[in-house]
Amino acid sequence: MDYRHLFSSDVPSFMRSPVREIFRKVDLSAICSFAGGYPAAVTFPVEDLKTLPGRVLEKYGTKALQYGATQGVPELREAIAARYGVPVSRVQITTSSQQGIDVCTRILCDPGEVILTTEPTYLGALQSFKAYRAFVRPISAFTLDSGEGTRPQTYGHPRPYKREGPIASDGRGRSEAEAVWGCVPSPNPARVKFIYVIPDFNNPSGETMTLEERQEIVALARELDIVIVEDSPYRELRYSGEEVPTIYSLAPERTLHLGSFSKIFAPGFRLGCIIGPEELLEQIYICKQALDLCPPVFDQYMATEFLTSGALDANLVKTKAEYRRRRDLMVSLLEKYMPEGVTWTYPEGGLFLFLTLPEGIDTIEMYDEALGRGVAYVAGSFFFLDGSHRNTMRLNFSFIAEEKMEPGLKLLGEIIKGRL
Amino acid sequence: MDYRHLFSSDVPSFMRSPVREIFRKVDLSAICSFAGGYPAAVTFPVEDLKTLPGRVLEKYGTKALQYGATQGVPELREAIAARYGVPVSRVQITTSSQQGIDVCTRILCDPGEVILTTEPTYLGALQSFKAYRAFVRPISAFTLDSGEGTRPQTYGHPRPYKREGPIASDGRGRSEAEAVWGCVPSPNPARVKFIYVIPDFNNPSGETMTLEERQEIVALARELDIVIVEDSPYRELRYSGEEVPTIYSLAPERTLHLGSFSKIFAPGFRLGCIIGPEELLEQIYICKQALDLCPPVFDQYMATEFLTSGALDANLVKTKAEYRRRRDLMVSLLEKYMPEGVTWTYPEGGLFLFLTLPEGIDTIEMYDEALGRGVAYVAGSFFFLDGSHRNTMRLNFSFIAEEKMEPGLKLLGEIIKGRL
Repeated sequence: MDYRHLFSSDVPSFMRSPVREIFRKVDLSAICSFAGGYPAAVTFPVEDLKTLPGRVLEKYGTKALQYGATQGVPELREAIAARYGVPVSRVQITTSSQQGIDVCTRILCDPGEVILTTEPTYLGALQSFKAYRAFVRPISAFTLDSGEGTRPQTYGHPRPYKREGPIASDGRGRSEAEAVWGCVPSPNPARVKFIYVIPDFNNPSGETMTLEERQEIVALARELDIVIVEDSPYRELRYSGEEVPTIYSLAPERTLHLGSFSKIFAPGFRLGCIIGPEELLEQIYICKQALDLCPPVFDQYMATEFLTSGALDANLVKTKAEYRRRRDLMVSLLEKYMPEGVTWTYPEGGLFLFLTLPEGIDTIEMYDEALGRGVAYVAGSFFFLDGSHRNTMRLNFSFIAEEKMEPGLKLLGEIIKGRL
Repeated sequence: MDYRHLFSSDVPSFMRSPVREIFRKVDLSAICSFAGGYPAAVTFPVEDLKTLPGRVLEKYGTKALQYGATQGVPELREAIAARYGVPVSRVQITTSSQQGIDVCTRILCDPGEVILTTEPTYLGALQSFKAYRAFVRPISAFTLDSGEGTRPQTYGHPRPYKREGPIASDGRGRSEAEAVWGCVPSPNPARVKFIYVIPDFNNPSGETMTLEERQEIVALARELDIVIVEDSPYRELRYSGEEVPTIYSLAPERTLHLGSFSKIFAPGFRLGCIIGPEELLEQIYICKQALDLCPPVFDQYMATEFLTSGALDANLVKTKAEYRRRRDLMVSLLEKYMPEGVTWTYPEGGLFLFLTLPEGIDTIEMYDEALGRGVAYVAGSFFFLDGSHRNTMRLNFSFIAEEKMEPGLKLLGEIIKGRL
């Protein structure tokens, strides 16, 4: 039977993760893989989890096993509201922060409309945007030419936004979005609907926006009278440097702040949250009734108990110490093994750092050799809307077995040297 | 700030559940409520759940806490495949069977296209269909005039489908769908994309389709060359009568069969599954990456362990005994307290039965009196596309405390008598 004539118009725009496709036939656990974005299993609160389910059943009884409210169970909403310092009415629990990205796009964006983002940006967000046939356009570029020769370093902050003309409806940039993401152009002038950013420890670059950059984003959103989706799954994982205020705190009237439990509890519990204006949450709430009725209830009570008992904060201290050590180890190994001309970001938190190789080395073309010799990474160009920056790569330092880090980076250094 | 200009075109079609709206200000636990559709808490495997989490952590380790495959964890897919007797490649795990309905609509239906359904039908499905701006049209009517005077009885089967002309593209019925559900008409001729049915123990009517009726549905789908979405959350809850083959077994090439763990495990674990052709599951899989990456992993391993250990089947025996007793009690109480002229369906399974009152009694108008005197139900007209059948109501027998059943139905009988 041929089903093609039955599919909706969204289906041709569904985007397979190019990363998953590349690694489909590779057993990453058998090699030195810096490719995934998983948290380290050692950070999971396994000891707490031995008693948590029992405590949840004792404290909340069968309520923890029944259907729950679409907004999330009141106990978790209250705990999150207290943690963020916002009213409970501004908290919606989501079934993963990926669902947060998806439902925000659903309520805000029609096919052919425009979402602005900094680059490089999160691939899972691009999958959602593309599945709704939105155009995605860069608002600032990754600064690759700064800081040469001073590695390791912090560089690559998104440039403050400098517009040379109106971007709201001129349709500029449509062609490249179309070329890369295959969006079907709308007959109407493209309308900008929201800005998507990951201000803290960006996936993939590991960078953090300065306060000034956040203020620029807010100013742009206010000028265009649009919403900001602030994707913030890593914010609590800071290993050095000073905390910068959230965009939400700068513009609570127009920011949807997405939080996640995946990096501070465990991703096997699919839980995230959206903090935002009640008027926007109201539409998300109605939409979510149809999406999945309610977030996982047992998981929510597990998270509530984990959070309110203080176990989350205690575990976070250990998690951050673990990741800080891993980041520092990776940076010192890069220093040791990377040839001259290779630079990288110095992340103050999160799970990733971003490498720039000398011009002319193509990290996609380099896959075959790397995988063949036993090391994996994600090519950086996947995170750029136009597929540019072919000489970049994302390295994850949270998931790889620690003893594989040195042989893996040594090997990677040799492969790069061979191409100089 | 005014957000209205920022919303997508789907938003005005989002539908609040009228049921939730009505009961928003009522504490249903304080009265005799037949309104909800929740399973009974006594059917939850609370004893098993005391040891399940520990066994899951011991057996699967941190894998149960990590991100998992978008299709679902292999162990649960295999267990479900074995239970259904289908290849693993035909099993997709979903984050609730509501998500199953939603994602099927997403991959199959554009705004203005048509979904066919029997009536009365599930309100949560109508919420999803409407949120994608689909038209929903009845393919057969609830037979209200049969079997008069022989209550309790099985009646109200959907009439075998009799078409008098082409329905695929004539746009007939658009006006009533528009009137009731507020769908915006498409400029293109309305195209039928799939048939949605709940063949076993329908929510709300409690009815079961005969084999002949299922064959009619299959013949219609084959004639129109479209897909059938077979929503089957109650199928394992049969209390009497003979099992009828699934529509999936009659047309595996064009049926997406939706299963649920909510009624055989616990709804607090948000888990369902889709059994269907690989070509359709492939698009659902890609879509689901963007929706929420993967179903809840810990919940999936809990379900795997519950299923494969035999605990699910043992618990199902107890669950069915409990519900059978409740159904029989409700039917005997209806016999005792309902005045002449009231009829009802006799469900062979599931959680609901459906009452028809004498013409002229309006169950929506009757709410105020009923809630005021301490009894709640759901008006049947909500489950009809055109809001007709104002003299019907859905009664749930699974969730109400058993001791409230007699006073509740006695009261309901009195309220109805007062309106004869």
